[in-house]
Amino acid sequence: MLLRNRDEVEPVTFSDAKGVEMRPLITDKQGAPHFAMRVFDLTPGGHTPHHTHAWEHVVYIIRGTGTVLGQEGERPLRPGDAVLLAPNETHQFRAGAEGVQMICCVPNQ
Amino acid sequence: MLLRNRDEVEPVTFSDAKGVEMRPLITDKQGAPHFAMRVFDLTPGGHTPHHTHAWEHVVYIIRGTGTVLGQEGERPLRPGDAVLLAPNETHQFRAGAEGVQMICCVPNQ
Repeated sequence: MLLRNRDEVEPVTFSDAKGVEMRPLITDKQGAPHFAMRVFDLTPGGHTPHHTHAWEHVVYIIRGTGTVLGQEGERPLRPGDAVLLAPNETHQFRAGAEGVQMICCVPNQ
Repeated sequence: MLLRNRDEVEPVTFSDAKGVEMRPLITDKQGAPHFAMRVFDLTPGGHTPHHTHAWEHVVYIIRGTGTVLGQEGERPLRPGDAVLLAPNETHQFRAGAEGVQMICCVPNQ
């Protein structure tokens, strides 16, 4: 078993995002065989890049609000929402006025 | 994009667990290519079975407290904790006095 709290994990920031911190909680570096779990914190008005990649995202909204922009348009986000973004689907997460915290899982590369 | 809230997902219960509801948020049925995301709610004193299987668990504690029993012993759980249980590691989740809510991801079978 490996156990660590988000507070023990150094945040990663991205030059093409605004107000976004990502903490890689469980990845292949911790021995995860198939997929990684990361937690994202977006400050109010923050957003991830509008981008695409060959792997899926599986997301859960822990707290806060925001929107997710996918290829069919924008959807509001609230706690308890689960989102599947398909491989190669262009997407962006945008935080609302209170920011948003979410889990985002991806397959190992 | 597929989006659904936990409140829209019917809970599954288990005969070998006590006080456990599992909602399969995003699985291969929703088109997830590699792994599934489920949310578990354990009522105070509830527990999952003490069991083992060939696939890993990647877990995030959303709220509440409890413990996780792995092969090296029992560890307390609090919000923000991330847990990797390796394939074939015997394990059990136990809720504390306020119950516990957690995300648990598994590879597609």
